[in-house]
Amino acid sequence: MVIVKVIRSAEGDNDLAANEVRSHLSGHGVLTLNFLGGPGCGKTSLLNATLARMRNEFRFGAIFGDLYTSRDAERIAGLGVPVVQINTEGASHLGAHMIKESLAEFDLDVLDCLFIENVGNLICPGNYDLGEDYRVVLLSTAEGSDTVDKYPRMFRQASVNIITKTDLLEHVAFNVHDVTSKLQVENPDAPVFEMSAKSGSGVEDWCRWLRENLTQAGMSGH
Amino acid sequence: MVIVKVIRSAEGDNDLAANEVRSHLSGHGVLTLNFLGGPGCGKTSLLNATLARMRNEFRFGAIFGDLYTSRDAERIAGLGVPVVQINTEGASHLGAHMIKESLAEFDLDVLDCLFIENVGNLICPGNYDLGEDYRVVLLSTAEGSDTVDKYPRMFRQASVNIITKTDLLEHVAFNVHDVTSKLQVENPDAPVFEMSAKSGSGVEDWCRWLRENLTQAGMSGH
Repeated sequence: MVIVKVIRSAEGDNDLAANEVRSHLSGHGVLTLNFLGGPGCGKTSLLNATLARMRNEFRFGAIFGDLYTSRDAERIAGLGVPVVQINTEGASHLGAHMIKESLAEFDLDVLDCLFIENVGNLICPGNYDLGEDYRVVLLSTAEGSDTVDKYPRMFRQASVNIITKTDLLEHVAFNVHDVTSKLQVENPDAPVFEMSAKSGSGVEDWCRWLRENLTQAGMSGH
Repeated sequence: MVIVKVIRSAEGDNDLAANEVRSHLSGHGVLTLNFLGGPGCGKTSLLNATLARMRNEFRFGAIFGDLYTSRDAERIAGLGVPVVQINTEGASHLGAHMIKESLAEFDLDVLDCLFIENVGNLICPGNYDLGEDYRVVLLSTAEGSDTVDKYPRMFRQASVNIITKTDLLEHVAFNVHDVTSKLQVENPDAPVFEMSAKSGSGVEDWCRWLRENLTQAGMSGH
């Protein structure tokens, strides 16, 4: 079942709400990841592929931000993961107060990890801390090689950067080596993963990173 | 030569500035189009393909909006078209006052048509009238079939909707028929074009529409 919450953009103090969310989630031992990227870059496909592989190892929940639909949440709810859909009614990003309000829908004591899929936008969501432990920023090979130069701030703030849709490499003008180098110059501390959710290529590398971070955070799996 | 103007987001009254821009441009007999779409959806490639075909028929100018780079403007300036690059320094959209300030860089008396390429974002730029005659909204086949459902407002406000990167259709999950139907339901008055700037397929249909509108507006070519 997907719970849909319509939350308009009345903001209050976002950083205050983010700190409350962070404190609340860490108090319950939940590791939280905020997934960001442009429209159609493959955020939901990445979550889908990750959950399909790891949902028997750890206990996941997911929050989806969208302007109007609950389409992404429906895709994921089919995997038996508790899901809340936030509809921003036109707002360009999720805010921490929206996450705070959504947490009441989860039984946090039985969760190891919470995924938050942000609104498809490479600019605005970068300005809003949601109380996450990690930011995961995606770009698709179909966007071409300029995405990092054009939206550098988003990639600089990432904990992890992921190049998606590598199955299209033969058909698009995208140089993996150049883009990876740019990502490493902009953000030397963030690992860069390449993957195709469609073929499965590279998904396990990312899952290994996530598994290590969940284990280090004290989630031993179940 | 590319003129780069850094204009931060101090806004003033956007609608007032938009009306001034519209009045100024129509007074000089310049037809103006605002191109919108997500990151890497093919806006610059469309402008490039259009100018390559039509620059000997009509006199074009172009304004590019980007957060930081002048990459798109450089691609187009190679075609011998006068170009201004606006850097928004992080702002998520162009505003009409930015266009107003940029117009001083053009000799409007010798222009038939001004292209404005907005910042790559399917949400925020939709809220800002730039004084354009037409809005052209793009979505790429690589984004998948959900883009119209997720960002309906942008497509509803369009004068023309364009499906780009049709050369990728064999390799991505995108149903042209379904997406075209959705676009026509959301916005029955806007024509829908399908094209691949890479293969050239469909570009002439769009150019014909533009040529007809330029001719109706009294630009007889030169």
